[in-house]
Amino acid sequence: MNTSAPLPGSAPDTVTTGPIGGSKKVYVEPTLHPSIRVPFREIAVTDAQTPAIRVYDPSGPYTDSEARIDLAAGLPLVREPWVQARGFQAIEGRTVRPEDNGGVGPDRLVAPCPARRRLRMGRPEAPVTQLEFARAGIITEEMIYVAHRENLGRAEALKDASATIAGAESFGAAIPAFVTPEFVRQEIALGRAIIPANINHGELEPMAIGRNFLVKVNANIGNSAISSGVAEEVEKLVWAIRWGADTIMDLSTGRNIHNIRSWIIRNSPVPIGTVPIYQALEKVGGDPVKLTWEVFKDTLIEQAEQGVDYFTIHAGVRLRHVPLTAKRVTGIVSRGGSIMARWCLAHHKESFLYQRFDEICDIMRRYDVAFSLGDGLRPGSIADANDEAQFAELETLGELTKIAWAKGCQVMIEGPGHVPMHKIKLNMDKQLACCAEAPFYTLGPLTTDIAPGYDHITSGIGAAMIGWFGTAMLCYVTPKEHLGLPDRNDVKTGVITYKIAAHAADLAKGHPAAQVRDDALSRARFEFRWDDQFNLSLDPDTARAYHDATLPKDAHKVA
Amino acid sequence: MNTSAPLPGSAPDTVTTGPIGGSKKVYVEPTLHPSIRVPFREIAVTDAQTPAIRVYDPSGPYTDSEARIDLAAGLPLVREPWVQARGFQAIEGRTVRPEDNGGVGPDRLVAPCPARRRLRMGRPEAPVTQLEFARAGIITEEMIYVAHRENLGRAEALKDASATIAGAESFGAAIPAFVTPEFVRQEIALGRAIIPANINHGELEPMAIGRNFLVKVNANIGNSAISSGVAEEVEKLVWAIRWGADTIMDLSTGRNIHNIRSWIIRNSPVPIGTVPIYQALEKVGGDPVKLTWEVFKDTLIEQAEQGVDYFTIHAGVRLRHVPLTAKRVTGIVSRGGSIMARWCLAHHKESFLYQRFDEICDIMRRYDVAFSLGDGLRPGSIADANDEAQFAELETLGELTKIAWAKGCQVMIEGPGHVPMHKIKLNMDKQLACCAEAPFYTLGPLTTDIAPGYDHITSGIGAAMIGWFGTAMLCYVTPKEHLGLPDRNDVKTGVITYKIAAHAADLAKGHPAAQVRDDALSRARFEFRWDDQFNLSLDPDTARAYHDATLPKDAHKVA
Repeated sequence: MNTSAPLPGSAPDTVTTGPIGGSKKVYVEPTLHPSIRVPFREIAVTDAQTPAIRVYDPSGPYTDSEARIDLAAGLPLVREPWVQARGFQAIEGRTVRPEDNGGVGPDRLVAPCPARRRLRMGRPEAPVTQLEFARAGIITEEMIYVAHRENLGRAEALKDASATIAGAESFGAAIPAFVTPEFVRQEIALGRAIIPANINHGELEPMAIGRNFLVKVNANIGNSAISSGVAEEVEKLVWAIRWGADTIMDLSTGRNIHNIRSWIIRNSPVPIGTVPIYQALEKVGGDPVKLTWEVFKDTLIEQAEQGVDYFTIHAGVRLRHVPLTAKRVTGIVSRGGSIMARWCLAHHKESFLYQRFDEICDIMRRYDVAFSLGDGLRPGSIADANDEAQFAELETLGELTKIAWAKGCQVMIEGPGHVPMHKIKLNMDKQLACCAEAPFYTLGPLTTDIAPGYDHITSGIGAAMIGWFGTAMLCYVTPKEHLGLPDRNDVKTGVITYKIAAHAADLAKGHPAAQVRDDALSRARFEFRWDDQFNLSLDPDTARAYHDATLPKDAHKVA
Repeated sequence: MNTSAPLPGSAPDTVTTGPIGGSKKVYVEPTLHPSIRVPFREIAVTDAQTPAIRVYDPSGPYTDSEARIDLAAGLPLVREPWVQARGFQAIEGRTVRPEDNGGVGPDRLVAPCPARRRLRMGRPEAPVTQLEFARAGIITEEMIYVAHRENLGRAEALKDASATIAGAESFGAAIPAFVTPEFVRQEIALGRAIIPANINHGELEPMAIGRNFLVKVNANIGNSAISSGVAEEVEKLVWAIRWGADTIMDLSTGRNIHNIRSWIIRNSPVPIGTVPIYQALEKVGGDPVKLTWEVFKDTLIEQAEQGVDYFTIHAGVRLRHVPLTAKRVTGIVSRGGSIMARWCLAHHKESFLYQRFDEICDIMRRYDVAFSLGDGLRPGSIADANDEAQFAELETLGELTKIAWAKGCQVMIEGPGHVPMHKIKLNMDKQLACCAEAPFYTLGPLTTDIAPGYDHITSGIGAAMIGWFGTAMLCYVTPKEHLGLPDRNDVKTGVITYKIAAHAADLAKGHPAAQVRDDALSRARFEFRWDDQFNLSLDPDTARAYHDATLPKDAHKVA
C-alpha cells in the first residue's frame, strides 16, 4: 500500500493503492456472463484445513496489485457495454458555468478531470432505471453482478443456510438462502432494494441497498473553504472505500465544487451521493431565501449528467411541519432541513421541493439517479427523538416514495439521528410501514448526547441495533462529529466502527455466510496463528501494531 | 490535573489529582446523617437558566482540589465509625509469607503500603454482611450513602419520574421514582443488589450493583512480569476511576502481588475485586494440577484480610461440564475456567471450589467479601455463544447463588463474553431465571469476532444492549483486548466507551434523572456554548482538543 499514482498540475497526485495486508483482489465471472467480473478480497489462511476467506470488497481497482491507476483517465468503464446496449439517447450535456465552481477566478480554478465520457439520457418511452427494468421482468447486468457479490461464501454455506436463518432474528425480513439474479430483480421491483447506478457512472461496480442484502455503510467526504482540496478529497474516497465504505456522499461546498466532483466520480467504483441543495445554495450566494426552483433544477441536471448516483432531496420538510419543531431542545439540525425551513418561512410558501416533486422525479428518472429522501427534521438530541415533527415528515416521505415509484424512480429513506435505545425499534417499524419497505438509510443513531469525541461509538451502538432491525445502509459518524472536520484517521475509525455495526447486524439477522469470517478468525485466535488473526480482521494494520506494542499476557486477554 | 503526590523509594510516586476540567467535587450530607458525606461532581453551566449539573462520581478524593493525597497514609477512613460501631472482632491477621509476594528476594521486594489499619472479622452469631443487615431490617450507613448517591438529580426530576419510567422499557426491572435507604435495604435483602464492602476496606465510598440502580462499569488493572510495577498500577486505578470506573478488578500475577495489592486497596475509594485462584496458582509454581484447597483457602483469607471487596470464584466449572466444551471453536477461554478444568481433568475429581463451596461462603461472610461467581465456561467466540457448556454452568451458578445467600453472602454472577446480538437477550433472561435476580456482571459481550483492535466497540454494542436488558455492571474491554496489555490511553478509552454503554442503558431503562445531562449538553450544543458542551461531556479534554484541531464547519456536523 501507499504507493502513489502521480498526476500533473493541481490535480490530485497521490492515492493509496495496493492490497490490504494478507489479502489479494480476485474477480469471479458468473457462469454464462463472461463480461461480468465481480471483485472480492481473498484473505489467505495458513491453516491447511481452512480455505481462503473471500470478503465483500467495495475498494475497486485501487487494491488490485495488477491495476494501473491513472486518475486523469478515470477508472475502467465496467458498465459501458451494458449501458451501451440499452439504447439511451446520446446528449451534448449542459455547458459548465462559472457559478458551478463557485465563481472562482482562472488563477484558482481546479481543472476538471480530463477523462472523456459518452453522455447519455434515458427516453420517456423505454425503461431507464433499475426499477423500470425490474418491473418489466428484465434482469440487468447490474442485478446479476449484485447477486454474485452478495452471495460471498453462501454456495459453501448452503446446507446450513436454512438453519442459520431460522436460528437468527430478522424482524420480518426475507433473507434468502442463496441470492439469485431473479431474487435481486424481485426485490428491486418491489421497491425493497435499490441499485444506485446513474447511467452516466460507467465506472461503477454495482451494489445493492436493501434489508434482504448485507447491511451497507456510507462515508461522507467533502471539501470546505477552510480545509481540504482536490488531492485530499479523492484520497478520502479511496481511503474510505479501502476500509469498507460501500457508498460515498460528497458534501462539498464552496469553490471548485463541480470540477472536484468530476475527479471524484470518474475515479469512484462506488455510488456517489450528493445533497444538491448545498450547491444550489452556493449559486445564490448562500442565502436560502434566494433559492429558486430554476436554480435547483439546473443543479439537478448538472450533477445528474456528471454521474451522481443518488440525491438527498429534503422534500419532506413542508411549511406546516416547521412549527412542530418550535419546542424542541435542538430545533432543526439537518443542514438541508434548515435551508428549506428557512425558505418556507421567509416566503410563507410550501417547499418547492415538495411542490415540484413530480418534475424532480422526471429529471432523476432520465439518468437513474436514486432518491435518498432526506430527513430534514431528524432529531438533533435524544430529547427530540420520535417527536411529532420527525414522524410527520416521515409520513410525508412515505407519500413521496409512492410518487417516485410511480415515476419509475428508485428510492431510499433517510433516518435519524439521535435516538435512545428504547426508541430505535419504533423508528424502524414506522419507516417500514410509512414507506412500504423502501430501504432505510440512517445516520447512527446516537444513543446518548453526552460523549462528543466518541460519537462514532454512541452512534455505533444505535447503528448496530437499527441495522439488525432492518436498516439497509448506515451513514457513518466519525469521532469528530459535532466538533470539527474528520481527518484521515477519523475517516478510517468511522468506517471501521460502522463495518462492525453492519456486520454485527448481518450476524444477528442470520445472513447465511456472515459468520464464516468470525469463525475463521476465532479458530486462528484459539490456535495462536497471530498472522491469520490479523489478516482476517477488519484492520490488520492496527491489530498487528497493537500486538507488537506489548507482548501478550494471558491474564489480560480475558474476553 | 496531573499534579503529583510524591512518595519515597520504590513506592508509587505520582498519581493524577485535581478536578476534571469545568467541574468540582461537592459533598452532600443526607438529612439526619451528618456523618455521611456523599460525593458528586458538579459541572458549572454558563447559561443562567440551567442549574449546575451533578453527576455520579466514583473518583474519590483524587479529584477534590481540597484533598491532600498521601499514598503512604492511604485514603481517609470514611467507613471507620460505622464499622467500628458494629462490634466486630479485632484480629491479628495472618502473617505475610514470602510466597504471597511470589518469593521475590529482598532486593526486589516492593515495600507494603505502610498505612496501618485495625483488622476485623465478623462473629458467627451477629450480622456481618450487608445482606444479613438488610434481612434483619437494619438500614446500614452504606445503604443510606448509596441511596443518596443513586438519586443524583432525581429530587428535581420527581414530577416527571413516573412518566419517564413508564415511557421507557426496563424489561421487568423495578426502577423507583426516588431511591430511599429502605428501597436499597429491600433490594439487598432480596439479593437483587449488592454493596461490595469488605469490613476491612474502610476507605471505600459505598456503591450498589443491581439492575434497579444505575448501570455500573468495572475496569481491570493488573501488573505482570513483563510490564508495569507499583507506580503504574496505583495510577491505573486512579486514572480509571477518574474517568468513571465504579469498581476495579486487580488481575495482577507474578511478584510483589501481595504488597502491590496493599497499596491499591489502601488508596481505593471503589470496591476492589480479585480472582484469588490467580494468586493461589502463583503459590504452587504455576501448575494448575498442584492446586489444593489449603492453598486456595489461605489465599482467600489473605486477600479478605487485606480488604478485597469481591472475589471471582469459578465454582461453576464442574468436572461434568468440561466435556461439553470439546467441540467448541474456542474451547475454554476464561483463565480461571481453564485452570479449574485442567485440575478437574488431571485429578478426575469434582472441582474443590464446588465441593468446598460452603467453606468458601463461611470465609467470605466473615469479612463481607461479595461473590462474583465466575463464568469459567463463557464463550470465547460467537460460534460458542449460548451453548450447552455455557448454560450448564449458568444453572450451577444458580444453585450456588442460593447456597451463598443461605450463608448470608452477597452474590453477583459473571456473564459472557462473545455473543451475537440476537442471542444477548436470552443470556439475560436465563440469568435472571437461574440466579433468582442476583445482579448480572458481564464482560461486553462482543457482538462479532472480526475486529481485534476495536473490541471496545464490538463489545460496547453488546454491553449497551445487555445493560438495557438488565445487567447491573459491565466489565470494560479495551482496544488492546486479545492483542496486548492496555496502556493509559487504552484504559481511558475502555472506561469512556463503557460509560457510554452504561448511560445509554440507563436512558433506555428510564432512570428518572439520567437524561438531565444529555439535555443540558444538547442545549449547550444548540446555542453554541462550546465550553459548556465540552465540560458536560464524558471527556472534556478530548472534546476540546478535537474542536481546537479544526474549525467547525456546518456541513460536516450532520448528526
